[in-house]
Amino acid sequence: MKTYLDCYPCLMRQALSAARRAGASDNQQHSILLKTMEELSAFPTGSNPAQLAYRIHQQVQQLTNNLDPYRDDKDQATQQALALYPELKKKVSQAADPLDMAVRIAIAGNIIDLGVADSYDLEATLARVLTQAFAINDLASLRNALAQSMSVLYLADNAGETVFDRVLIETLDIPVNYVVKAGPIINDATREDAVAAGIEPVANIIDNGSNAPGTLLDQCSELFRKRFAQADLILAKGQANYESLSNSSAPIFFLLQAKCNVIARDLGVAEGGTILKQQVVD
Amino acid sequence: MKTYLDCYPCLMRQALSAARRAGASDNQQHSILLKTMEELSAFPTGSNPAQLAYRIHQQVQQLTNNLDPYRDDKDQATQQALALYPELKKKVSQAADPLDMAVRIAIAGNIIDLGVADSYDLEATLARVLTQAFAINDLASLRNALAQSMSVLYLADNAGETVFDRVLIETLDIPVNYVVKAGPIINDATREDAVAAGIEPVANIIDNGSNAPGTLLDQCSELFRKRFAQADLILAKGQANYESLSNSSAPIFFLLQAKCNVIARDLGVAEGGTILKQQVVD
Repeated sequence: MKTYLDCYPCLMRQALSAARRAGASDNQQHSILLKTMEELSAFPTGSNPAQLAYRIHQQVQQLTNNLDPYRDDKDQATQQALALYPELKKKVSQAADPLDMAVRIAIAGNIIDLGVADSYDLEATLARVLTQAFAINDLASLRNALAQSMSVLYLADNAGETVFDRVLIETLDIPVNYVVKAGPIINDATREDAVAAGIEPVANIIDNGSNAPGTLLDQCSELFRKRFAQADLILAKGQANYESLSNSSAPIFFLLQAKCNVIARDLGVAEGGTILKQQVVD
Repeated sequence: MKTYLDCYPCLMRQALSAARRAGASDNQQHSILLKTMEELSAFPTGSNPAQLAYRIHQQVQQLTNNLDPYRDDKDQATQQALALYPELKKKVSQAADPLDMAVRIAIAGNIIDLGVADSYDLEATLARVLTQAFAINDLASLRNALAQSMSVLYLADNAGETVFDRVLIETLDIPVNYVVKAGPIINDATREDAVAAGIEPVANIIDNGSNAPGTLLDQCSELFRKRFAQADLILAKGQANYESLSNSSAPIFFLLQAKCNVIARDLGVAEGGTILKQQVVD
C-alpha cells in the first residue's frame, strides 16, 4: 500500500507519542519532530507507510537512546490479554463455528496497536468485533486453504495481541510458525512477548530478522525470506503487515481491523471494519 | 498561549484539509505538506498557534490560488445555524437566567470550527453545552462587568457561530462592536458572514484589519488596535482568540469550547469543557 498524505500528520503524532514514552525532554521532543519532518520531506514517494514508520520510530530510539520505549505498554497489554484468555477459550469452545469465533478473536486483539492511536478499549472492541458483520469476509476461502495446507506462517503484530493469536492458533489443526520481530519497534511483539503470551507450547516462534513494523522483506533475514517464499499459507496480522505486503503475490490472508481512515479507504470499507481478506493474486 | 508540540501534527492535518477544500491536486497537496513542514521547522519557538495557523493557511491560499477554500462550508454553516435561530431565541426567552442561557448558546456555536476538526455535530453539541456544567465559569464577573461597561468589543470567531453570537448580543443591554476578519481565513467570519447571520441590525460590524485567525494585534489595523486598547469590556470567542490573547492584559472574557487536548491542558480543564474565563490581569 502506498503512503497517503494523511499518513504524514499521523507519523508526526506517532513520533511525538513515541518520544514521550521514551522519556524525551521537551527539547528532545522538539528535535525529534524536526528530524521527523526532515525524513518525511526526503522520503521517496511510493514508499509504504511501514517503511516510513520504521525510519521514524528508529530515529526516536536513537535520539532518546531508548531502544524499547513501549516496553511497559507491551507488558501491560500482555497481562491484560492473559486475564481475558480463559473467557476467550470458552467463547471458542461454545461457538457453533469455532474457526469463525477464533478468527474474530484474533482480529479483535488487533486493537492493541499503539502506532495508530495512543490508547484503546480492549473489552469494548472485543464485544464489537465478536458480534458485528465482517467488512471483508474470506472465511470460506481460509477454511479451504487451511484444509489444503501443511503449515501456517503466522505473521504476528503487537504484544498482547499475541494472546488473541494464541487462541486462534490453538483452534487450528496444522502446525504454525509464529513470526515475531527480531528487535523492538513500537509495541510490536518480539520473541519475549510471544513467550509471555504462552505461544511457545503451541507454535514454533521464529523472528523475521528485522525490527521494522510489518514485513519489509528487503529488511528481513535470508532465512525468513526463504520461509516466506515457500509458505503455502500465510496469516498476516494488522495494518503494518497489510501496508507492507498488500502488493505481494504470496498466499496471504490479512486479518486486521481497519483502524484509520487511510487503511479503510485503501480496503474500500468503513473505518473500524473487521477484515479477513485473501490476497488476490493475478 | 505558546505552541505545543502537539500542534505540529494538527497543523499538518489542517494544511491537508484546507488544500483539499481548495481543490488542490494530489501533487499540490504533497507540495503544500512539504511547504508546511518547512514553515513548522523554521518558525520561531515561542510563537502562538494562531500565528502558525495564519502562515500555513495563507500558504494554502497562495499555492492553490484559492483565497477562500472554506466559502461553501461557511455558507452552509450560516444556513444551518439560522434554521436553529428561532429555537435558540425561545430557549433564552424561557430561561430562568437569560444571560446564562445566551452565553451557553454562544459557546455552543463555537463547535463550528473547521480548523480543529474536519466536521462537527451542531445539534448534539448544543444539547450538551446547554446542560453540562461550565469547566470554568466566570459568569458572575461577566454580569458585573456588563453592568459597569458602556459597550462591548465582541471578537467573533467562525461563520455560522455568528448566529449564536447574535442571540447573545440580543440579550445584552449595551451596544456591541462586532469584530470580524478583514479577509477570509479558514472558516472565520468576515463582514459578509456577519451580515448573512443577521448581525447588522443588532451590532456595529467592524473588521480588525487582518485576516489572521484569532487576534494577532501586530497584524491588525491601527484603528482596531486603538479600539481594542480603549475597550472596557471584550468578549473573545473561540480557541484562536484564546491562543493569541491569553497573555494580553486587556479586560477580556474568553468564551469557547476546549475542543482539543492542547487548549484543554493549557486551561487546566478536560477536553470538551465549556469555558467562560475572565482574563486574569496582574
